[in-house]
Amino acid sequence: MSKMLNVRELFPEGQLRFIAGPCAVESEEQIDAAASFLSSRGVKILRGGAYKPRTSPESFQGLAEKGLKILRKAADQYNMLVVTEVMDEENLELVGEYTDIFQIGSRNCQNFSLLRAVGKLDRPVLIKRGFGNTVEEFYQASRYISKEGNDQIIMVERGIRTFEDSTRFTLDISAVPVLKEKVKYPVLVDPSHPAGKREYVPSLTYAAVGAGADGIMIEVHPEPERAMSDARQQVDFKTFEKIYGQAMKIREAMS
Amino acid sequence: MSKMLNVRELFPEGQLRFIAGPCAVESEEQIDAAASFLSSRGVKILRGGAYKPRTSPESFQGLAEKGLKILRKAADQYNMLVVTEVMDEENLELVGEYTDIFQIGSRNCQNFSLLRAVGKLDRPVLIKRGFGNTVEEFYQASRYISKEGNDQIIMVERGIRTFEDSTRFTLDISAVPVLKEKVKYPVLVDPSHPAGKREYVPSLTYAAVGAGADGIMIEVHPEPERAMSDARQQVDFKTFEKIYGQAMKIREAMS
Amino acid sequence: MSKMLNVRELFPEGQLRFIAGPCAVESEEQIDAAASFLSSRGVKILRGGAYKPRTSPESFQGLAEKGLKILRKAADQYNMLVVTEVMDEENLELVGEYTDIFQIGSRNCQNFSLLRAVGKLDRPVLIKRGFGNTVEEFYQASRYISKEGNDQIIMVERGIRTFEDSTRFTLDISAVPVLKEKVKYPVLVDPSHPAGKREYVPSLTYAAVGAGADGIMIEVHPEPERAMSDARQQVDFKTFEKIYGQAMKIREAMS
Amino acid sequence: MSKMLNVRELFPEGQLRFIAGPCAVESEEQIDAAASFLSSRGVKILRGGAYKPRTSPESFQGLAEKGLKILRKAADQYNMLVVTEVMDEENLELVGEYTDIFQIGSRNCQNFSLLRAVGKLDRPVLIKRGFGNTVEEFYQASRYISKEGNDQIIMVERGIRTFEDSTRFTLDISAVPVLKEKVKYPVLVDPSHPAGKREYVPSLTYAAVGAGADGIMIEVHPEPERAMSDARQQVDFKTFEKIYGQAMKIREAMS
Repeated sequence: MSKMLNVRELFPEGQLRFIAGPCAVESEEQIDAAASFLSSRGVKILRGGAYKPRTSPESFQGLAEKGLKILRKAADQYNMLVVTEVMDEENLELVGEYTDIFQIGSRNCQNFSLLRAVGKLDRPVLIKRGFGNTVEEFYQASRYISKEGNDQIIMVERGIRTFEDSTRFTLDISAVPVLKEKVKYPVLVDPSHPAGKREYVPSLTYAAVGAGADGIMIEVHPEPERAMSDARQQVDFKTFEKIYGQAMKIREAMS
Repeated sequence: MSKMLNVRELFPEGQLRFIAGPCAVESEEQIDAAASFLSSRGVKILRGGAYKPRTSPESFQGLAEKGLKILRKAADQYNMLVVTEVMDEENLELVGEYTDIFQIGSRNCQNFSLLRAVGKLDRPVLIKRGFGNTVEEFYQASRYISKEGNDQIIMVERGIRTFEDSTRFTLDISAVPVLKEKVKYPVLVDPSHPAGKREYVPSLTYAAVGAGADGIMIEVHPEPERAMSDARQQVDFKTFEKIYGQAMKIREAMS
Repeated sequence: MSKMLNVRELFPEGQLRFIAGPCAVESEEQIDAAASFLSSRGVKILRGGAYKPRTSPESFQGLAEKGLKILRKAADQYNMLVVTEVMDEENLELVGEYTDIFQIGSRNCQNFSLLRAVGKLDRPVLIKRGFGNTVEEFYQASRYISKEGNDQIIMVERGIRTFEDSTRFTLDISAVPVLKEKVKYPVLVDPSHPAGKREYVPSLTYAAVGAGADGIMIEVHPEPERAMSDARQQVDFKTFEKIYGQAMKIREAMS
Repeated sequence: MSKMLNVRELFPEGQLRFIAGPCAVESEEQIDAAASFLSSRGVKILRGGAYKPRTSPESFQGLAEKGLKILRKAADQYNMLVVTEVMDEENLELVGEYTDIFQIGSRNCQNFSLLRAVGKLDRPVLIKRGFGNTVEEFYQASRYISKEGNDQIIMVERGIRTFEDSTRFTLDISAVPVLKEKVKYPVLVDPSHPAGKREYVPSLTYAAVGAGADGIMIEVHPEPERAMSDARQQVDFKTFEKIYGQAMKIREAMS
């Protein structure tokens, strides 16, 4: 389906690119609306979870293969790439039939078996920092992938566990310059998970751009308040548009 | 190899039992020495890693199946049970040929696919708290296992990530009473990993007993200073003997 | 009023002593009831706050000098010593007229001016670890006192800030052995503040004894549910009696 | 010496202003060089510690009144304002003779006596967040000041304690939007202390501007490598100039 992508072409040095889409794939309508809107605004990579790692086994766990199909269809229609989470080696082949970029979620940042497995594939891997991991551990996790031969890696800071409780996680903005000293890969920031509330997403996005992030991975939903997961932190189209425009202006001011 | 074990028989309410052995299986001699000594002191469960989840891909990763064989042989000879870590679903069958109890390591505490997989087996599962996870998340992780039908679960507090750096992790001793409110499973404490230095292991063990732990999971090595991993935190036989005796006396004083 | 006390006589090596009393002095009746009960059970040091450092300026701030008088009167009647918090140098003289031991609260652990000031007096100082301070910083704080000439110091671990939210703070039980390596002073544990809920106070107390604490500083109130501060974490007389007896049994088992 | 300043005139909404200067006042030459350079670049507020709260009592504690005189002289010569830390009520009058703005340091964020004391004065107060305090506690600390009548308050986020150790503290960049919801005061960011290393100071500054900070409080030293404290995190004049220019460009891009 997809030729080998180069992550540095997706996220060129000195520029700013967005990965956007809903937290979870919920329906064909939802993803079509998101992809239609986002692609029209210049977003080239569509995110959306078909397998959702949820704290409780009773929470919505995702649409599985049905979700993958929905993502693929929308991405093809709107000429986008898909990034979606793979939670285990068993599903690697199945997810690989639909996605362009494999996502390793925060809870699997030190799932070394899974890291080795995606390291053997010729497909980019987006890895999110474990919320209990140091930057050094995050870096070493990326080395489990590259050691197997795959150095098409995208690293995403998404907040860590601290005592502060006015946000869901504490965005470790310093991780951006620290990572950039260690790796040549694109370093992105996910402002949605640390914010926990959509009110804070714009500020965290702009902070990430200021810190030098190569990209932003953001949760956007056609109707955030109806979302089946992370409803409080997803932004609507209008808000995304404002964030996108402002972020690009800041990026330009930095050149 | 092993009939279905009942975790409450292994760790009866109001008593104290030890799981002991080296961090990693390094050689037949090492494990034989450990099993011989430990079994003679009344320890019934032998621990030892054949697959080691290490931060860096260059660190010693364990002896794999060779390590499993060494563990099984020693356990059979000295009439002990084996607990050893399984890091992925792929190895579940192989590890299952040798172990009596599956261990889910701290970094896999929210590896939900792996939790579901061991939840489908009729073998006890010892799960360690993720060092970045709350007690509530740890509890929910156990529910991923029990929801699949397996409620032979042992839960192990092993320290969390905090700002304090005089120890390797901060043992969250309060997790013992908090977990005991939530589950009926045995709640153990691993004093070795939070200590990081063997000097602190005795105090943390006695604290765990005071807090009401049903058992202690401790790293014991014939020659700790020569250990291939966690050399600073493993205790030698003589120290173990002292710890074991003192811990039992405290447990008795609590009845 | 009080001759120079020796903290090692108050907390002899290898023994266990309690400091107990309500969070705040609320009335003469309350303190009289507490002192009468506690002294009859062998507690020699009465605690109670006359100046309360509260997060919000609208919360109950303590009875001030009236509270000090109530404490002194009860202590004299029941042959106890008083320990109470001093929040600033201005009140040092006034508090000094009533207390036997000055308490430096967690929020003032690095109030170096106050530390120097109590370091110049010939009265014991009980210092609580700052909830955002490392053990090393706590140790250095004690050196601000001793450097001025006062080495009658009692150090109290009372929990630190972490991401865990099932308890109010995370009791860093490892601080006991770590501190005992650094100082010759008595090292105590306050189980009430980290617990946050009285259900966990017994377990944390026993853990502290197991860890080797020289004493326990615990909040006891005649009617905990009516307390004007920290109502959820204070224990009643009956519970204290049980805790005290069990703790002493554990301490004996450790000799 | 100084008329009552209005903090909103010093830090107007929608603009960006810098407070800059060395960590500690070390000599007249050092401060003169800093003030001369900084004022020529448009910086109106000079920082520098005359009383330094140091973890160890043996570390350099500052030049005291001599340092205050040096600051005042340089500020007068170059038409700048002075902000400097006051560590206790005893020195309030003395420090007040020389400073335009009182600084309450991170370790005194919940020194409620000191907060009340500066709350009674008619001089602006710059308060830094305690590194172990939540944003809510920081906000409540500001209310201890305003409740006494002084609402000329400047709030500074300067990093919190977390498990991450590649930086000295973790800059909680989310604190900027969270605080701006709670208070009308200027919200500043100190990029120097969280960075711990000067290499990260530019990125953290730009992140702060992106997050919406009203100002930046930064450590600048004529010869950083010779600084008597915080030598690793202070930037030289040339670096400051670059940071200042870039930060202003980002701020403009946000209007």
